[in-house]
Amino acid sequence: MVRVTVWNENRHEQKNPVVRDIYPEGIHGAIAAFLQDEFEVRTATLDEPEHGLTDEVLQSTDVLVWWGHLAHGEVSDEVVEKVKQRVLDGMGLIVLHSGHFSKIFKTLMGTSCDLKWREADDKERLWVVDPSHPIVDGIGEYIELQREEMYGEHFDIPAPDQLVFVSWFTGGEVFRSGCTYQRGNGRIFYFRPGHETYPTYHNKEIQRVIANAVKWAQPVDRKRPVYGNAKALENGGN
Amino acid sequence: MVRVTVWNENRHEQKNPVVRDIYPEGIHGAIAAFLQDEFEVRTATLDEPEHGLTDEVLQSTDVLVWWGHLAHGEVSDEVVEKVKQRVLDGMGLIVLHSGHFSKIFKTLMGTSCDLKWREADDKERLWVVDPSHPIVDGIGEYIELQREEMYGEHFDIPAPDQLVFVSWFTGGEVFRSGCTYQRGNGRIFYFRPGHETYPTYHNKEIQRVIANAVKWAQPVDRKRPVYGNAKALENGGN
Amino acid sequence: MVRVTVWNENRHEQKNPVVRDIYPEGIHGAIAAFLQDEFEVRTATLDEPEHGLTDEVLQSTDVLVWWGHLAHGEVSDEVVEKVKQRVLDGMGLIVLHSGHFSKIFKTLMGTSCDLKWREADDKERLWVVDPSHPIVDGIGEYIELQREEMYGEHFDIPAPDQLVFVSWFTGGEVFRSGCTYQRGNGRIFYFRPGHETYPTYHNKEIQRVIANAVKWAQPVDRKRPVYGNAKALENGGN
Amino acid sequence: MVRVTVWNENRHEQKNPVVRDIYPEGIHGAIAAFLQDEFEVRTATLDEPEHGLTDEVLQSTDVLVWWGHLAHGEVSDEVVEKVKQRVLDGMGLIVLHSGHFSKIFKTLMGTSCDLKWREADDKERLWVVDPSHPIVDGIGEYIELQREEMYGEHFDIPAPDQLVFVSWFTGGEVFRSGCTYQRGNGRIFYFRPGHETYPTYHNKEIQRVIANAVKWAQPVDRKRPVYGNAKALENGGN
Repeated sequence: MVRVTVWNENRHEQKNPVVRDIYPEGIHGAIAAFLQDEFEVRTATLDEPEHGLTDEVLQSTDVLVWWGHLAHGEVSDEVVEKVKQRVLDGMGLIVLHSGHFSKIFKTLMGTSCDLKWREADDKERLWVVDPSHPIVDGIGEYIELQREEMYGEHFDIPAPDQLVFVSWFTGGEVFRSGCTYQRGNGRIFYFRPGHETYPTYHNKEIQRVIANAVKWAQPVDRKRPVYGNAKALENGGN
Repeated sequence: MVRVTVWNENRHEQKNPVVRDIYPEGIHGAIAAFLQDEFEVRTATLDEPEHGLTDEVLQSTDVLVWWGHLAHGEVSDEVVEKVKQRVLDGMGLIVLHSGHFSKIFKTLMGTSCDLKWREADDKERLWVVDPSHPIVDGIGEYIELQREEMYGEHFDIPAPDQLVFVSWFTGGEVFRSGCTYQRGNGRIFYFRPGHETYPTYHNKEIQRVIANAVKWAQPVDRKRPVYGNAKALENGGN
Repeated sequence: MVRVTVWNENRHEQKNPVVRDIYPEGIHGAIAAFLQDEFEVRTATLDEPEHGLTDEVLQSTDVLVWWGHLAHGEVSDEVVEKVKQRVLDGMGLIVLHSGHFSKIFKTLMGTSCDLKWREADDKERLWVVDPSHPIVDGIGEYIELQREEMYGEHFDIPAPDQLVFVSWFTGGEVFRSGCTYQRGNGRIFYFRPGHETYPTYHNKEIQRVIANAVKWAQPVDRKRPVYGNAKALENGGN
Repeated sequence: MVRVTVWNENRHEQKNPVVRDIYPEGIHGAIAAFLQDEFEVRTATLDEPEHGLTDEVLQSTDVLVWWGHLAHGEVSDEVVEKVKQRVLDGMGLIVLHSGHFSKIFKTLMGTSCDLKWREADDKERLWVVDPSHPIVDGIGEYIELQREEMYGEHFDIPAPDQLVFVSWFTGGEVFRSGCTYQRGNGRIFYFRPGHETYPTYHNKEIQRVIANAVKWAQPVDRKRPVYGNAKALENGGN
């Protein structure tokens, strides 16, 4: 059974009653709840020791789900480096919404990961542009969210290996809202929706996409390749 | 359980005792044999009515494996068109070795699919260049085949969506030997090895790759998107 | 100097006074007019012998621009095959708007190339999603067209090698509206705008994109690779 | 005229007479020499103040060529950050050979950029796998280098946006030796050959590839996109 750790900054929930009302168990709690039928799920949050991401937790995590926003800067560089190493070693990583600006996503992408944004109750319609992808198993032509924060292009990311969703927003913007990446032995999925003041993670289709992504991102059974000085495999080698 | 149909031209096996000795049940029989532990497997061959690919067979096939060489021209255009439609509708397609020149592969790629070749007992070493891909689950850094036909670049294909293997050959050539493509709702994997006069499909690692590819290529649970004239989803639409 | 041939079906212009008023010299004439400052430009139309695409014309064309809509079926398969061969040999191809359903585009893509559409004066906003691409040289963050036909996802194409533009439409749809592909020695750009009843090709930014695309698609100085039986380059080859 | 800065660590040349004999003007001098016919060329080296990469130099550089090996760790993080920013702002970057382990390449890729290597006079044959790419303009089917250091897969990089060359080595390895990437407004080309003890940069075909890459990587005429809080472009926006 795939072992999932849902990481959440868990700050809005402490400060903002609107968020707490929507997510009484925290965003991590809400995500863990809908994943636990299919996966072995734990949660971890910023204010725990080592942000809840000890070596032991990371080593026993197949797929890490990441939600952060206010406090990206408080995540320790050491933990970020460990998470990055685990991704390169094969751990899957699902980065949600404002996690686009997390240290872990930026260091894995190599770009600014900047974008346009607006908190104004835009409608978001996420169109499926790769109907063959396992991440959209069971999903219709699009997912409609009546109210969400707007994220607009240009989104400063490397061209995705696979572009799965493109969002339409009321205010006139588009966004590459579902993007996959391969890094080392690991696979990464960025998924846009999930502003803290909307009940996005209670939406069944959004839940389905995240669950599909966890399955898709689970590690393959392989060791890291051997790097460094190598003897010739053929006699012809000098 | 994923339903696999293994299609084979089945001509070399009739004409050439060397091939028959290696594959007494035909190449299709050998492939079906190692797939049947994990999948529901049928075979179909060129000389059956409709090449064994009736509407009923195609409709109940999740993943089609294709081996052809001598008789690409004898495959009816009507059957090719039906197979293409099924791929666009979601059926997975695994094209093996000389299938690079099959009508179905060429029509799905849009290019000549030509390449360099040599039958001269070259050694082939297939290096994994995407260690995160489910198709290489359980596979080491490379697969070594002591003797194979050489296929060399330039291989006239569209740039693969994902490049999984690159082959080294004794004679000085390289080849993109494991390539994935997305077409419509369907996924395609081209896998190079498998010349009829070598026991390649008895190799356990080659078998593992093909079984992994079948899993990877299985259809997602989705209808084809709706195409054609569309009403506006928003009032702002004129 | 890059030699461009602008091909147009040229039927709407004959039948529809609205179109004729917008494009008195035909769509081909309008496109040729803005390209001729930078390139050596000819036009060709459906009703000419061999559709104006004789061997001589094709051999002396570096980049072919294609606009068709009503009469895709009247384009002869023989001419399509010749154009395809020229693309694989290195000729650039710019496919505009309803050319998505042309025989030449469909055969090069290998998919249905189907999409959603609506003629309803939607506003189109083409967002640049690859700001590093030479095709968007001199273009701002987006191009806005006050009225255009809507094309919506899912667009049944292979994942583009490079996705340059994504369109937003008033009615709630998005579209991958600027897509590049590599096929053989040739490069292809699909560019969505240009419905015949709107003055889209008089828009300076649209003109700039098409001119940029012509430059980008010009052939490299290379022969086609050698295909077929190949002698070993190394003694180690058996 | 494209303004090129060739950056070199310039340490082997000081320490090793073999290298000095091959490159009496330094590797940077050799590269600058063959680029200066077509471009406006400067050089910069590690031991200059700010490594020769002052704000003024960076601001007036269209394409930066990078060779480093022994002293990646001595390149200041501040300079690396400025170079990265310039790439995202549109400056082209050509990373050569052992530059795969440079800070600037690793931070732009987000992976370890590790690989296999061997100094053993392997023959390298770089096969062109994208014959449509401007970087291989004027180049034949492959480039052959009689002696080079071997670099072998797995090369721990993101899947290239475009894979242009794949190398064959005598000892049995392959390598993705010509790779393009888009990052922000900038374009990057990694090109494998160029070990300091071989006269690789005196090879006319290698020179041609690097010159082609400079042309390809020159900035487009665009400002960086606008990021951050954005007003709605449509009234429908809330």
